[in-house]
Amino acid sequence: MGLRDFTLFDVIERNAQLYGDRIAFVADGLRISHREYAVRVERVAAGLARAGLVAGERVAVLAQNCLEYVDLYGAAARLGLILVPVNWRLSADEIAYVIGDTTPKAIVAGAEYLPIIETARAEFPFVARFFSLGAATGAFGAFEELARGGSGEGAPVADIPSDSGFVVIHTAAVAGRPRGALLSHAGLLAANLQLVGRWGLSTTDVHLGALPLFHASGLGLMLAVQQAGGATVVLPRFDPPAVLEAIAAEKVTVFAEFPPMLGALLDQAAKGGDDLSSLRHLTGLDTADTIDRFETLCPSARFWAGYGQSELSGLVTIAPFRDRPGSAGVPTMLNRVRIVDDFDRPLPAGQTGEIVVRGPMVFEGYWNCEADNAFTFRNGWHHTGDMGRFDDDGYLWYGGRSPAKELIKPGGENVYPAEVEKALLEHAAVAEAVVFGVPDAQWGEAVKAVCVRRAGQGVTEVELIAFVGTRIARFKRPRHVVFSAELPKNAQGLPDRARIKREFADA
Amino acid sequence: MGLRDFTLFDVIERNAQLYGDRIAFVADGLRISHREYAVRVERVAAGLARAGLVAGERVAVLAQNCLEYVDLYGAAARLGLILVPVNWRLSADEIAYVIGDTTPKAIVAGAEYLPIIETARAEFPFVARFFSLGAATGAFGAFEELARGGSGEGAPVADIPSDSGFVVIHTAAVAGRPRGALLSHAGLLAANLQLVGRWGLSTTDVHLGALPLFHASGLGLMLAVQQAGGATVVLPRFDPPAVLEAIAAEKVTVFAEFPPMLGALLDQAAKGGDDLSSLRHLTGLDTADTIDRFETLCPSARFWAGYGQSELSGLVTIAPFRDRPGSAGVPTMLNRVRIVDDFDRPLPAGQTGEIVVRGPMVFEGYWNCEADNAFTFRNGWHHTGDMGRFDDDGYLWYGGRSPAKELIKPGGENVYPAEVEKALLEHAAVAEAVVFGVPDAQWGEAVKAVCVRRAGQGVTEVELIAFVGTRIARFKRPRHVVFSAELPKNAQGLPDRARIKREFADA
Repeated sequence: MGLRDFTLFDVIERNAQLYGDRIAFVADGLRISHREYAVRVERVAAGLARAGLVAGERVAVLAQNCLEYVDLYGAAARLGLILVPVNWRLSADEIAYVIGDTTPKAIVAGAEYLPIIETARAEFPFVARFFSLGAATGAFGAFEELARGGSGEGAPVADIPSDSGFVVIHTAAVAGRPRGALLSHAGLLAANLQLVGRWGLSTTDVHLGALPLFHASGLGLMLAVQQAGGATVVLPRFDPPAVLEAIAAEKVTVFAEFPPMLGALLDQAAKGGDDLSSLRHLTGLDTADTIDRFETLCPSARFWAGYGQSELSGLVTIAPFRDRPGSAGVPTMLNRVRIVDDFDRPLPAGQTGEIVVRGPMVFEGYWNCEADNAFTFRNGWHHTGDMGRFDDDGYLWYGGRSPAKELIKPGGENVYPAEVEKALLEHAAVAEAVVFGVPDAQWGEAVKAVCVRRAGQGVTEVELIAFVGTRIARFKRPRHVVFSAELPKNAQGLPDRARIKREFADA
Repeated sequence: MGLRDFTLFDVIERNAQLYGDRIAFVADGLRISHREYAVRVERVAAGLARAGLVAGERVAVLAQNCLEYVDLYGAAARLGLILVPVNWRLSADEIAYVIGDTTPKAIVAGAEYLPIIETARAEFPFVARFFSLGAATGAFGAFEELARGGSGEGAPVADIPSDSGFVVIHTAAVAGRPRGALLSHAGLLAANLQLVGRWGLSTTDVHLGALPLFHASGLGLMLAVQQAGGATVVLPRFDPPAVLEAIAAEKVTVFAEFPPMLGALLDQAAKGGDDLSSLRHLTGLDTADTIDRFETLCPSARFWAGYGQSELSGLVTIAPFRDRPGSAGVPTMLNRVRIVDDFDRPLPAGQTGEIVVRGPMVFEGYWNCEADNAFTFRNGWHHTGDMGRFDDDGYLWYGGRSPAKELIKPGGENVYPAEVEKALLEHAAVAEAVVFGVPDAQWGEAVKAVCVRRAGQGVTEVELIAFVGTRIARFKRPRHVVFSAELPKNAQGLPDRARIKREFADA
């Protein structure tokens, strides 16, 4: 381990050393202390090491939240493995795609998901070991055996730098296929530190882990509370009565939610009079009405609004909802967040553009997408593909997905509208240009440009296509160019991309 | 700037954006907002850039705490310069040594220190510009002019990685000369985040900056409070009545102290009945008696004990003094702290050994000391040269400087006792060995070894010296070997190095 490196496994060891007797996880009817968790992690790591897994290799997990899932995260940290937590809501085809994309050496699946894996098994020649979280069956060994195979002593702690990959979370689909965002130890640790600082998390905090562990929010909050030496109550799913019971019994202090979770919880609480008084910090997305109901019922708790992405290891802006209802809060301590126009020029407060981010929480890139990464990270900033604006006080207001972000895929190649537009605007005769994809019988998709000519300047479609071909790769040249006297604009005075696409798609 | 990089200049820009109207510094009778501070930093940076300074070059400062000192830290962050804050308590010869060691391109000196610099000026051919914090005189331009030279627009923000050097603090003398510890942006940011998290620092915190800004503690607390968007009250020196007045007037919440500062403050407060009720967190070193007096007078405040070094960018262990009086607290969130024996084997709780540290707060190394750095950082840990032990609950107990750390300098070469001892112990006949330096007429210093032979084994002085010469560099061979039937031990059962050195120096 390098001199200045620090990984999520160091967090586990530190917790075992400092808070050994405190509870780390409550799951499957067990209460696991930080010391016991370190022992469990050690055993699973030893098993995975015996199974031949080494740093940098992937392990896919297809399971409901459970204690073994949490053990796997710890063991991955210890061995430097990259966990691929698969969304069990995906179709069998999509699950196979995620596995084929990341070529894990081992797959761990809950009993209910074994048939999906079994059916597609022939497509996974790279997988050396299949494990079942239930009984062993067919090709699937019992995961329980893996962790029981030895004393647990001696599994090597991986000698990996802090910026090593820790998890791949599939998101940000282009052309119908999700891309795997590779998050590093360093990125997740930076996210942890900022939540610990902002919320004052400590060993007494208890996180309700009801969001799936394949989701960046569920994972992120679990790690932040673990960083502070606190506990996570791992629930297999969001079931309002069970959640209310867990909150009261374990004195839960923090959780993350998405609609309609909080509303359902408040409805249920209204029936039973359950004790929610331990809650301190909630975060997620919800309506002002539901947040009002929550804060009225729990006056000592706060609902935090924020902006984040899987690609950002967590939330890069945050504030109490109450501070500025409707906004996404202000940038956290280690993030620079900017609003830029299509040419990466920073926009002043009040103007809407793309949200770009720089700092240690930015992910390591999409798995197997070098060209996408170069473009997403152009000019030293991560381009989120989300629109937004800052107000005069530095609060971010989310404005939806960026239409310009839509990749065009002619013949499987990646073409980003902005780079074609930039090339078009370099022609002296072009005043404005908007580029988008249109269906194409031959290539699946084709690049189309709508341009406004400068007054008194003449240029033809053929000349412009040839011109672009001298500036950027030939496969990025528009296949169609349409000239228009003007472009429809939005309230910010920018081209209204959605409307242009609608109006000119068939022109 | 790299995608995942974040520097102390980003903190300044973020504060200007988010907390523009809040006070950043109170100094020299001025109250400077975060927005105004960013403007001042911009102007000084523009001036330094015009003076030809570029990223990686050094600027030495020899001055009492003042607003310009704080401006210089900000401008250095913006330009990627490395500040060399010189201890004004040093002798003229020592000041010249620090400057010669770091070869700054510019020197900024308070009016009272101009004669020292002027006298030694011929020794500094590498210094292109001399600035006075007072009026221009002789070779010294007025620093005030520098910052006034233009609009301040356009000084480039340095394109530097987060682990770039930011400050060199001279410490850890060997052979009578201090070594410059190079601290990076990333290391200081990691230190900031941990104090922000542990203390819950926010925009409402106010730091009393009475420790010199050339000291890691004074600088560290200033940066941590700045990270949270708070303010620092910059005082030129520690003067109890002025400090008490500042605490009451500015509602100071945090500061760092060394004896007898707190005692003197409490004595003064007892006279005047000044209002200390704003204080929340104090840290430093002091007696249990003084800390008792403080916490009795300020029941809502806490005194924090900790362990740190300039080399560690701040405190790597911390806890409220009250939690375990006499200890140095527990490791902070991003640090691994271990106790090891002379051969880097981890020692269990209760046993005393050298304190070693790994994590993002570890410094970048001693300036111009490659060989020292390789040894200090051996096996992936920073060897602090300090002794200590952990108790069963993970609290660190400081045990003084390590005698083994004492470098031996035969003929100007560096020899560390531990490496010679390791070589001696590789000989089958050697059961124990302790090595230290003795005066030597020819080489200044010579390596001396005291060894215990294994029962029934024979080896001569000459054989052992030759044996070591086959294992490590010849200049590291002992010049003298003494055999003893046994070695005096300390309470922990380890060789009592101080006593051995005393008893065997002349043997």
